[in-house]
Amino acid sequence: MRILASEVKKHIGKEILIQGWLHKKRLLGGLTFINVRDRQGLVQVLVQDKDEVEKLRGLQIGTVLEIAGQVIEDERAPGGAEIHDPKLTVLVPVVDEPPIEIDKQLSHKPDNLDTLFDNRVIGLRNLDEQTIFKTQAKVLEATRAYLKENDFTEMNTPKLLAEATEGGAEVFTLDYFGKTATLAQSAQFYKQMMVGVFERVFETNPTYRAEPSATTRHMTEYITIDVELGFIEFDDLLALASGLLNRITDDVYETYGEQLKRWNAQKPILTSELPRITMKEAHELYGKANKVDMSGEDDLTPDEERWICEYAKKNLGSEAVFITEWPSNSKTFKFYHRKNAENPELADRADLLFRGIEIATVPMREHRYDVLVEQLKTLAGGNPDDPGFKHYLSAFKYGLPPHGGFGWGLERTTEKLIGLNNIKEATLFPRDLNRLAP
Amino acid sequence: MRILASEVKKHIGKEILIQGWLHKKRLLGGLTFINVRDRQGLVQVLVQDKDEVEKLRGLQIGTVLEIAGQVIEDERAPGGAEIHDPKLTVLVPVVDEPPIEIDKQLSHKPDNLDTLFDNRVIGLRNLDEQTIFKTQAKVLEATRAYLKENDFTEMNTPKLLAEATEGGAEVFTLDYFGKTATLAQSAQFYKQMMVGVFERVFETNPTYRAEPSATTRHMTEYITIDVELGFIEFDDLLALASGLLNRITDDVYETYGEQLKRWNAQKPILTSELPRITMKEAHELYGKANKVDMSGEDDLTPDEERWICEYAKKNLGSEAVFITEWPSNSKTFKFYHRKNAENPELADRADLLFRGIEIATVPMREHRYDVLVEQLKTLAGGNPDDPGFKHYLSAFKYGLPPHGGFGWGLERTTEKLIGLNNIKEATLFPRDLNRLAP
Repeated sequence: MRILASEVKKHIGKEILIQGWLHKKRLLGGLTFINVRDRQGLVQVLVQDKDEVEKLRGLQIGTVLEIAGQVIEDERAPGGAEIHDPKLTVLVPVVDEPPIEIDKQLSHKPDNLDTLFDNRVIGLRNLDEQTIFKTQAKVLEATRAYLKENDFTEMNTPKLLAEATEGGAEVFTLDYFGKTATLAQSAQFYKQMMVGVFERVFETNPTYRAEPSATTRHMTEYITIDVELGFIEFDDLLALASGLLNRITDDVYETYGEQLKRWNAQKPILTSELPRITMKEAHELYGKANKVDMSGEDDLTPDEERWICEYAKKNLGSEAVFITEWPSNSKTFKFYHRKNAENPELADRADLLFRGIEIATVPMREHRYDVLVEQLKTLAGGNPDDPGFKHYLSAFKYGLPPHGGFGWGLERTTEKLIGLNNIKEATLFPRDLNRLAP
Repeated sequence: MRILASEVKKHIGKEILIQGWLHKKRLLGGLTFINVRDRQGLVQVLVQDKDEVEKLRGLQIGTVLEIAGQVIEDERAPGGAEIHDPKLTVLVPVVDEPPIEIDKQLSHKPDNLDTLFDNRVIGLRNLDEQTIFKTQAKVLEATRAYLKENDFTEMNTPKLLAEATEGGAEVFTLDYFGKTATLAQSAQFYKQMMVGVFERVFETNPTYRAEPSATTRHMTEYITIDVELGFIEFDDLLALASGLLNRITDDVYETYGEQLKRWNAQKPILTSELPRITMKEAHELYGKANKVDMSGEDDLTPDEERWICEYAKKNLGSEAVFITEWPSNSKTFKFYHRKNAENPELADRADLLFRGIEIATVPMREHRYDVLVEQLKTLAGGNPDDPGFKHYLSAFKYGLPPHGGFGWGLERTTEKLIGLNNIKEATLFPRDLNRLAP
């Protein structure tokens, strides 16, 4: 029976069988060691028999092996044990030398991402690369667990739409049996409609933006954690988002804290309720420190986002911060956003910044049918009778409670949890203006 | 503080506050009862006060209400308690009568699906409709739990591709900044490449087929549970798939067995290892019983799939069955499938039939680089140097173990678990040739 990397130490003194990839060969003090990789990590094997050493000499990294041998305790080996007196069997031979080295973290060069992605299929076999995507899987798992504990129902909504829901130029269109369809830029309309059904819903889903530039922050396809819930007010919404980021951080670092050290990753410092800074305060603080006048700007620049996060870390004890009090007389105010009841010049919206970048937009929605129809007409130039709006509006016409939610970026969250600098480093197979493969 | 439907009974004798939708009004023996719906179900309220009865008279179904009142134990009420002496407050008024009745299961008419879907946004507020999608969420949850217990890593792969991976006409194409992109018909290539990384991977992901017909079995967008694992043989693969269907069934019926009774749903009878019938046997059994000659056919007809499932239920004690021994000299044999080592005229493939329909294709893959390249050329007319194949093939060139997996249809599984007759009934917002909205 095959023994896996994490189980080897349980078999000290015994003969076992392992299967995996030849991950590394090295000579150490005249001895030949190899590392064999399986889905749980590495097993170290000491090869001494002359014939076996000879057999090994011709094998390329990546060769799929089966090894029978005896387990010897050794604290210096990964997993605390290694295999001696191995008998090697090649299950799948590899003829050519791999295009990149996979046993060194160095192959991950953020200043040459094309090399990284052109060799992605093999480069991901590196254990440190794997840690990024183990972390990402854990973010999803923690998110679902947290939302389920909070009584959310998971759903699946279509990405093929008749019309672009939120308008704008950044929409992919396709031929749909002679008609035109678009790819969903978000699950916005669906998640709001579904508040009328399950009250609390979420979906982890691909999102498409025809973003015609290649930046460190954007891709044309990415995963959004879409969350929406009814019978709540703005404070409830920010509490939910605060709880989610704390939960993700705790679960990721509890499980992968050790592996993440190799990325020099630090567990984010967060308050249980994340602090809030108003847009106006943010502009003032940044303007004062950087001797510029940002007053009146209706959004934050990327540099302001970075600076404010540093400020919050130093002064508010949190590496994540909500930017609140967004202006409602701005293009950042969507027709489905809600104006603040006491000060209609402001939106009930926060952006969640985390380690220098916005990872979620967290607004309340306008739930009153009449007001929504009015905002649709005046702010978006939309016609309530258009098929693209008709179904959406019907959810409101027949009763939706006050509600809000957020679209939360999976890759940005992973990127910043680890301290990477480009969203694409946290994407298995990134898509942008210039890249559709692998 | 708001009390939810499942919590009401814990507050007998106390004054509580509930919030939800007006779901039903009725007169019973001169008394006025209403049901209020929240995310956990219904709360029954007895309205006796004249002013409150009067207030209620003008309210449409769907009105968002807050109700303060006293909890009285009553076994006849949903949840075992009801609210007396209520004080009603309208949180969100509804002016118009909803287009369909939502308190009756009758509104779900499988013979008029257009009505069902044209009113989907409101119709989903029906509790029986909700059971379908609660079931679906549970299928996903059970699947992830089972795969995680079996050491699988979740991943996210792109749906925007440079080329159609599996060829064929049923591919959606879109304009990608002046180039052509396609929508993924499956995660096939990615999950195989990722076996080289994590050994065992899965993804629950949208899948796109430009299927130019409207059937009870197909949609243009649906969710596939994609699973792939290495270092296994065919029997291991069928054992994994058997275990998954059993786990899904157990978890769904444990949680929603009671609600599913309203759909007359029966828990599927399954053996722990699902039985196998060869393609040849299937043709013979069906042919004999139906007095037709199916011998030599390289696939099963929909009617054969139905019949074989009935046969397996009666004779093999299982409502799911694997069809094995698919021919390799057929268009059902893809270039990435593996021929049987002992009999190369057969493929190492099974189709999993469940209650009359194929829910998963379960094949081993050809993992030997040279053989795969040869099959690509001869069976698919593909060029190994094409960018669309280059990355995929590199995973094999640098070492992939024997592996296999399956693409498992989420909606078909949900449909058959409940005993529905059309895949679209198990889809929140279905997409086909004729439908892109809502």
